[in-house]
Amino acid sequence: MSFQRLAEEIKRKNNRTVMGLDPDFKFIPPCIYDKQHALYGDTLEAGAAAALEFCLGLIDAAADLVAAVKPQSAYFEQYGVYGMSALAAVIDAAKKAGLYVILDAKRGDIGTTSAAYASAAIGRTAVGGASLPVFGADCVTVNPYLGSDGVMPFVDAAKKYGGACFALVKTSNKSSDEFQNLRVDGGEPLYIRVARMVETWGGVPDGSGYTCVGAVIGATYPRELAQLRGVMPHTFFLVPGYGAQGGGAADVAAAFDKNGGGAVVNASRSLMCAYKSAGDERGDNYKSHTRAAVTAMRDDINSAL
Amino acid sequence: MSFQRLAEEIKRKNNRTVMGLDPDFKFIPPCIYDKQHALYGDTLEAGAAAALEFCLGLIDAAADLVAAVKPQSAYFEQYGVYGMSALAAVIDAAKKAGLYVILDAKRGDIGTTSAAYASAAIGRTAVGGASLPVFGADCVTVNPYLGSDGVMPFVDAAKKYGGACFALVKTSNKSSDEFQNLRVDGGEPLYIRVARMVETWGGVPDGSGYTCVGAVIGATYPRELAQLRGVMPHTFFLVPGYGAQGGGAADVAAAFDKNGGGAVVNASRSLMCAYKSAGDERGDNYKSHTRAAVTAMRDDINSAL
Repeated sequence: MSFQRLAEEIKRKNNRTVMGLDPDFKFIPPCIYDKQHALYGDTLEAGAAAALEFCLGLIDAAADLVAAVKPQSAYFEQYGVYGMSALAAVIDAAKKAGLYVILDAKRGDIGTTSAAYASAAIGRTAVGGASLPVFGADCVTVNPYLGSDGVMPFVDAAKKYGGACFALVKTSNKSSDEFQNLRVDGGEPLYIRVARMVETWGGVPDGSGYTCVGAVIGATYPRELAQLRGVMPHTFFLVPGYGAQGGGAADVAAAFDKNGGGAVVNASRSLMCAYKSAGDERGDNYKSHTRAAVTAMRDDINSAL
Repeated sequence: MSFQRLAEEIKRKNNRTVMGLDPDFKFIPPCIYDKQHALYGDTLEAGAAAALEFCLGLIDAAADLVAAVKPQSAYFEQYGVYGMSALAAVIDAAKKAGLYVILDAKRGDIGTTSAAYASAAIGRTAVGGASLPVFGADCVTVNPYLGSDGVMPFVDAAKKYGGACFALVKTSNKSSDEFQNLRVDGGEPLYIRVARMVETWGGVPDGSGYTCVGAVIGATYPRELAQLRGVMPHTFFLVPGYGAQGGGAADVAAAFDKNGGGAVVNASRSLMCAYKSAGDERGDNYKSHTRAAVTAMRDDINSAL
């Protein structure tokens, strides 16, 4: 339930890393794309097939090392229906490999619509007399702008099906300051107000000490990260922004509780595209480069705790 | 460009109504589902096939009357890959019927990821040497919580491909007050601050007087709607919440400019499920009931201007 399975994977592998899966065309190794191009030409079908092969290869390369993967829905949606089919296959493969799957979709709407998004991502859809699993991720990211009734359907689905969600609190991008850092009624920034709500949305923490509602807080804002750890003692953190976006191990250390738990750190490009940094331009050995990058990230973060 | 085509459709049909397409299972007429159930049993495939047949029927029923349709992505995603395939077919059919298509997806992420969402919804995806259309809507709804760099990729795609987007400002749900109405730095509510940014994001208005960045403002908050019309003189409004959510014609009147332009009003359940209100429980005549409801809504809104 909630984040217990994620916490177990972290402990078992002694690795607080989430491998982000962002199969944008420009990140896919040419050696993979060329095969699909020969079959399908320059089409969405070729893009989706290459995205799938790449993600399956990354899972194969790192499943024994990382705790979780985070497929980013946008990079699959951009290949249309073929991409959504690839996304479903990636989630299935990751679960079969024992990985915890965080679907990064940043969904959120009015209550009835959020319920449908929650069904799609982590729950089940009612059709006739049946209740059917859909994409079947363990966890999904959600946007809090609509308030409680936009988020609670995700919490309800999480509780009903043993999943979880991460709500955006302080995002890693540069302009997150524009709204998230505005001082609200009591003088505190909006992200703190959102954080206080997130801390309550999940209700009573389970045996792990955390509720089923986590928070997304960017590694690019280490001061806010440390502050929010204090504001949200029962909230599991997903920390993006390590690596290509500029966050380092010292920046993310404050995300963890005193036992080194309660958080995972995501890197996408720096792991997926390790073959590029290594000068392997066609990506013939992308798996070994990603393995090396995952190992280095694990050790980097563990050494900062 | 931007909202000109939408404005033209409104004028041509003298109708400020958007028909929302939310094909949740509980809204689908039994007469439609029974056929699909006979073919596929209680499966996601049956749900998606029934959703598609229902939406195509609604488009056929109302295409000569309404200005636009608004398929809600969540209600397609909940049927998995089959649902996304249905969504693509619904968008195609609506465009062929001459309707303006607003994909209600409320996407938003850091810049690079928002760019992929924008490609999927209203733009094109780069694969190899090609630039390929994907879902091909005219317009998409976006969530502003991440700030400018999360929204600008949608604006860029809108400008490049002649589309548009609507950013959430003041949403129609009950708990939209929780964050959106908090007083920020200067003493004004957050939704006003967001509105001021939305007014600038689209740049210079085109010949219609509006930019390519619109705003979503719920009919359930008529006071805010009137206030925001003043704050955002160059911003086209999408006003959900009419009908089943409780908004009436008097509530939405303030959304329009002095010429009765600059806004569209969405209703979903009250149009799609008109067969239920009419006592046609199996929905055998759902098309004629929807036609009647669309006509009544058109006249109701026009009479309040």
